[in-house]
Amino acid sequence: MEKSNHILLICCRDRAGIIAGVTGFCEQKNWNILEVDEHVDKSSGTFFMRLVFECEGQADVNSVISDHFENSSKYELGISWALHNGNYRQKMAIFVSKMSHCFFDILARHQAGELNLDIPLIISNHDKLEKYADRFEIPFFHIPITAENKLDQEKKQIELLKSHEVDFVVLARYMQILSPNIIDQYPDKIINIHHSFLPAFPGAKPYHSAHKRGVKIIGATSHYVTSELDAGPIIEQDVARISHRDSIADLTRKGRDLEKIVLSRAIRHHLNRNLLVYENRTMVFA
Amino acid sequence: MEKSNHILLICCRDRAGIIAGVTGFCEQKNWNILEVDEHVDKSSGTFFMRLVFECEGQADVNSVISDHFENSSKYELGISWALHNGNYRQKMAIFVSKMSHCFFDILARHQAGELNLDIPLIISNHDKLEKYADRFEIPFFHIPITAENKLDQEKKQIELLKSHEVDFVVLARYMQILSPNIIDQYPDKIINIHHSFLPAFPGAKPYHSAHKRGVKIIGATSHYVTSELDAGPIIEQDVARISHRDSIADLTRKGRDLEKIVLSRAIRHHLNRNLLVYENRTMVFA
Amino acid sequence: MEKSNHILLICCRDRAGIIAGVTGFCEQKNWNILEVDEHVDKSSGTFFMRLVFECEGQADVNSVISDHFENSSKYELGISWALHNGNYRQKMAIFVSKMSHCFFDILARHQAGELNLDIPLIISNHDKLEKYADRFEIPFFHIPITAENKLDQEKKQIELLKSHEVDFVVLARYMQILSPNIIDQYPDKIINIHHSFLPAFPGAKPYHSAHKRGVKIIGATSHYVTSELDAGPIIEQDVARISHRDSIADLTRKGRDLEKIVLSRAIRHHLNRNLLVYENRTMVFA
Amino acid sequence: MEKSNHILLICCRDRAGIIAGVTGFCEQKNWNILEVDEHVDKSSGTFFMRLVFECEGQADVNSVISDHFENSSKYELGISWALHNGNYRQKMAIFVSKMSHCFFDILARHQAGELNLDIPLIISNHDKLEKYADRFEIPFFHIPITAENKLDQEKKQIELLKSHEVDFVVLARYMQILSPNIIDQYPDKIINIHHSFLPAFPGAKPYHSAHKRGVKIIGATSHYVTSELDAGPIIEQDVARISHRDSIADLTRKGRDLEKIVLSRAIRHHLNRNLLVYENRTMVFA
Repeated sequence: MEKSNHILLICCRDRAGIIAGVTGFCEQKNWNILEVDEHVDKSSGTFFMRLVFECEGQADVNSVISDHFENSSKYELGISWALHNGNYRQKMAIFVSKMSHCFFDILARHQAGELNLDIPLIISNHDKLEKYADRFEIPFFHIPITAENKLDQEKKQIELLKSHEVDFVVLARYMQILSPNIIDQYPDKIINIHHSFLPAFPGAKPYHSAHKRGVKIIGATSHYVTSELDAGPIIEQDVARISHRDSIADLTRKGRDLEKIVLSRAIRHHLNRNLLVYENRTMVFA
Repeated sequence: MEKSNHILLICCRDRAGIIAGVTGFCEQKNWNILEVDEHVDKSSGTFFMRLVFECEGQADVNSVISDHFENSSKYELGISWALHNGNYRQKMAIFVSKMSHCFFDILARHQAGELNLDIPLIISNHDKLEKYADRFEIPFFHIPITAENKLDQEKKQIELLKSHEVDFVVLARYMQILSPNIIDQYPDKIINIHHSFLPAFPGAKPYHSAHKRGVKIIGATSHYVTSELDAGPIIEQDVARISHRDSIADLTRKGRDLEKIVLSRAIRHHLNRNLLVYENRTMVFA
Repeated sequence: MEKSNHILLICCRDRAGIIAGVTGFCEQKNWNILEVDEHVDKSSGTFFMRLVFECEGQADVNSVISDHFENSSKYELGISWALHNGNYRQKMAIFVSKMSHCFFDILARHQAGELNLDIPLIISNHDKLEKYADRFEIPFFHIPITAENKLDQEKKQIELLKSHEVDFVVLARYMQILSPNIIDQYPDKIINIHHSFLPAFPGAKPYHSAHKRGVKIIGATSHYVTSELDAGPIIEQDVARISHRDSIADLTRKGRDLEKIVLSRAIRHHLNRNLLVYENRTMVFA
Repeated sequence: MEKSNHILLICCRDRAGIIAGVTGFCEQKNWNILEVDEHVDKSSGTFFMRLVFECEGQADVNSVISDHFENSSKYELGISWALHNGNYRQKMAIFVSKMSHCFFDILARHQAGELNLDIPLIISNHDKLEKYADRFEIPFFHIPITAENKLDQEKKQIELLKSHEVDFVVLARYMQILSPNIIDQYPDKIINIHHSFLPAFPGAKPYHSAHKRGVKIIGATSHYVTSELDAGPIIEQDVARISHRDSIADLTRKGRDLEKIVLSRAIRHHLNRNLLVYENRTMVFA
C-alpha cells in the first residue's frame, strides 16, 4: 500500500502525559513515528512538539487527529496544532529588487536540486534581473512601486500570489516595506533577510551603522515579516568577523555571503516545517 | 511524596513502535516525561533514545524497566539500555601534569557552582600544581611515572580511583598515555582533551605540525580514551582562526582557550548523560 | 650594548610620504624596525601607523622623535603620536563584584605566565572574592558602594589606583557604573566587558533581553569605558550560537565563556599597545 | 598625468634596514605608498613584504626596481621579488565537472561585479553545465577525460589556456587529478577547493570519512595545486558545526556552502596579490 508522511506540530500549555498521549495514539493507529522532538518553555509553561510519522493508505489523517484532540481528556481545550503533508510540494514566490546575490543563490540551489519546492514566479519592483529569471525559465513580473501606487500594486502582487497558489514568500533583498495588506494575508509565511545582526541596526543602511559603531563582527538575520519593521520572529542568524581595515564596501561584500547562507537556511527550515512560532520567537526543530 | 528524576538511554535496532512503546509504558506507570530525544542512524538502521522522566516514591525503577524490556514483545532481544538517577551526584577525578590552564578552568567552574559534581581527588605525575590544588582544598596525589614504574603506578592510580568511588576521569592535559589496565576499567568514562582538530595531527606536538602545514584554523578535540591513541569517540570539538603571523607559541596560547572550552563542554555532556556511544561515534542529545 | 624596544603609534591626516618619512628616520638613527602596520581610513582621510623598533643604548628616544615630528616639513602640524617603552612592565588593577568567572580567568592566565604585567591590587564592592584573591596573594580592597557614598568611595578608588601607580583598569564584571570622576582620569585605559553583542542589548540584563527577542546567537563585547554607558570604543567581540532550548540560565552560562575570552583578548591588545582609538572606533594592529 | 598602481612582493632573509630601504626608495622616486604589510618568520629568519604604491607617468617601474635591488648594498644577493601592475585585468579559467554549486557561485559573483577579472573560458570533462555557461555567455569547452586519453586531453587544455592567455586557473570541484604536465606550467596559479578541513581527510569521499569518524565540525580548504594530492599551500579554510543528526547527504549539502565561500575568498586573495608562498605555506596579506 502507498505510504504518506505527515508532520504534526503542537503547541499547548505544559502538562503531564502529552508526549505519551500523542505517541500512544500514533501507535494505536499503526502510524510509524519517524521523528519526535519536543520543548518545554519553562518560563511560560508552554509545551511544543514536532512529530513526523508515516501511515499507509489514504485515511483522512487530519480529521482523525482533530477528533482525537477534541475528544481525549488528555489535552486541554484550545490545544494548538497543525498537520502538514510531507509529500506536498510547496510553492515559493521570490520578491527581488536590483541586488542579485540572494536571487542567484536561491536559483542555483533550486537548479542543483537542493530545494524540494516549486518557484512559480518572481516579482520585482525593477526589471534589472528579468533576463536572468528568463535564463532560469521562471516567470518574472515587473511591478514598479511608488509612494502613490503602492497599495494598488500590492493588490496586483496578492492576486499573482493567489493565482499561482503560492504557499510562502521570500523577500530576497526586496527593498520595499510591505503594507499590512499583504503581510496579514501571509502570517509567518513571508521570510525576509535583513543585513544586520538584529536587534542591532534595524532599518536602512545597517552596514553604514555597523562601520560607524566600530563593531568587530557583522551579521545577517532572517525573520518572518510582521507589521513592525525588522521585529518579526527570528528564524536564523549568522555572523562574520571584520576589522578596522574593512570599508563599508567590504562589509557589504562580506555581508552578502552571510545573507545568502542565512536566507537559504531559513527557507530550508520553513520548507521542512521545522519552525514553530510562539510569542514572537521561533522554535527550530532541526 | 518525594520525586526523583531518571535518565533512560536506549540503543537498539530500529523498528516501528519503540517510541510509543517506551513513552506509553512511562504513562502507564505515571512517570512524567520531561524530555525526549531520539535519533535513527539510517545507514546502520540503529535507533537511539534519551528520555528524562520524573517519578514519585521510591519504586525500584531499574527493575521495573528491566522487566518491561525483557517481557514486552515490542522490543527485540538484546536491546541495550542504561538508567541513570538524575539526583545522584557524580564523582570526577582530575589527572594533570604541569600545564595549569585546564586545571584552573575546571576548578574555577566548580567553585562558581557551574559543575554539579564532586572532585574527590587530583592525580598528577608532577608536583607543580599541588599548591594550587591545596588552595582549592582538593586532595592531590603526586604519582611520578617513568617507563619502568608505569604499570605499578597505574595500580596505585586505580586503587585511588576505586577507594574514592570515582565515576569518571578527566585528563586535563595529562601528558601520559594510559595503559589498557586503566582504560579497560573505565570504558567511555575517561575524557581526554587533545590539542588538535582530530583526526588531523594526532599524537605529540600538534601545534608544531599545524604550524608546519600552514593551516588557517586550529582546533581542539575532546574524546573518550580508548586503547588506540587519539582515536576514541569524539565528544566535542571547536576551532579558532589563525594567520601566518601566529608563531607556534601563539598557536599554543590560542589553543589553550579552545582546550578549556572544549573540555568543559565535554565534561558537561558526560555529567548530564547526554552522550550515547555507538561504533566509535557519539550521539550528543543536548 | 643594551637594546630596548619601542612602540610608536601615529595618527594624522593622510598625505604622501609619511611611511617613508618615519621609516627613513628610523633607519637614519640606526633603529631596527621590527614591525610596521598602517591603515588609512579613506572616508575621513586619516592615517594610522604602529611601528615597533629596537635601538641600542640609552638615548632619549622620546625627545628625538618629538624633535623629528616638530621640525620635519614632511608632517602636518598637530600630528598625534605616542611612544611606549616595550620593556616597561605595566600595572593593571582589577575591579570585581560577586561574579568570579572573569576574575579567576585573569588570575589563572597571570599565574600561567600568559600576561606579562603586574596586578598590584583588586578592588571590589563586595567581599565575596576576597579569600580567592588572598590565595593568589594579591591585595584586595573592599570598597562598598551605595547611592550615597559613591563619589566618596570613588575618591578612595582613585587614591588606591594612584598610590599603586596603576596603568590601566579592568572591570571584570564590576556591576557598578563609574562616574566621570574616575573615567576622566583614565581615558582609553578602563576596559569593560559587557555581556551582549553591542550595540544590541546595552545596559542591564542583556541575557534576559536576548532570550525575549529570540536571537539565535549571543555575544560579548569588550570596550573602553566612556561616560556614555556601553557606548565606548569596541575592542573585541565574540559570539556563540544558541537555540530555543537555552534558558536564560543557559545563556548566562554560555555567555560566561564568551566574556572570559573576549575580555582576555582585549587585555592582551591593550597590553601590547595594539590599539589606536579614533572617533570612538579602535584600530587593532595585531 | 596618468597614475598607475603597483604591488610589490618581497621575500628574503631577514636583516635590518629592508623596510626603510624599500620605503625610502619609493619616496625618493616619488611613488606614493598606499599600503605596506610585512612579516618575519622568526623560525626560519625570513622576511616577507607586500607594498602597494602609486606612481605617475609611464616609467618602467619594473626595471627601476630591478636596478635598485641589484645595485643597493642594503639587500642580500638573491632577494626574491615580484611586481604586479594593479591595473591589469587578470584572466581566470574555470575547470568544472558535474557539480554546479561553485560554478554558479563564481558566475553569480562575476555577474554582480564582485570579481574584477575576465573569464575567457570554462573547461569541463562533462557537458552537463554547458547550457548554463551559455546563459552566462562564457565559452565552454567539453574535454572528456579517460585513463587512456588523459595526457592528450591535457595538452588540449594547456593549448586552450595559452591561446586564451589565462593567468590562473580555478578548479571548481573539478573531479580529475591534474598531471604534472599542467601543474608545472602554472605553479601557484591553480587554485583547488577540497571538501575537508585539510590535512584531515585528503583524497576521495571526505564527507564519508568525516561521518565515519564522527567529527563534530566539517571544513573546506582551498589550496594551490602541487604534484602531491591535497598537500599544496593552504590559502583559506572554513568550517561548519554538524551533529550526529547529519547524514552524509547533510554533510555534503552543508559542505557545499563552505566550499563556495572558501573558494571565492581564495580567488579574491589571489586576484588581489595578497598571497606569498614560502615552504609550502602562504602568507595572506589582507
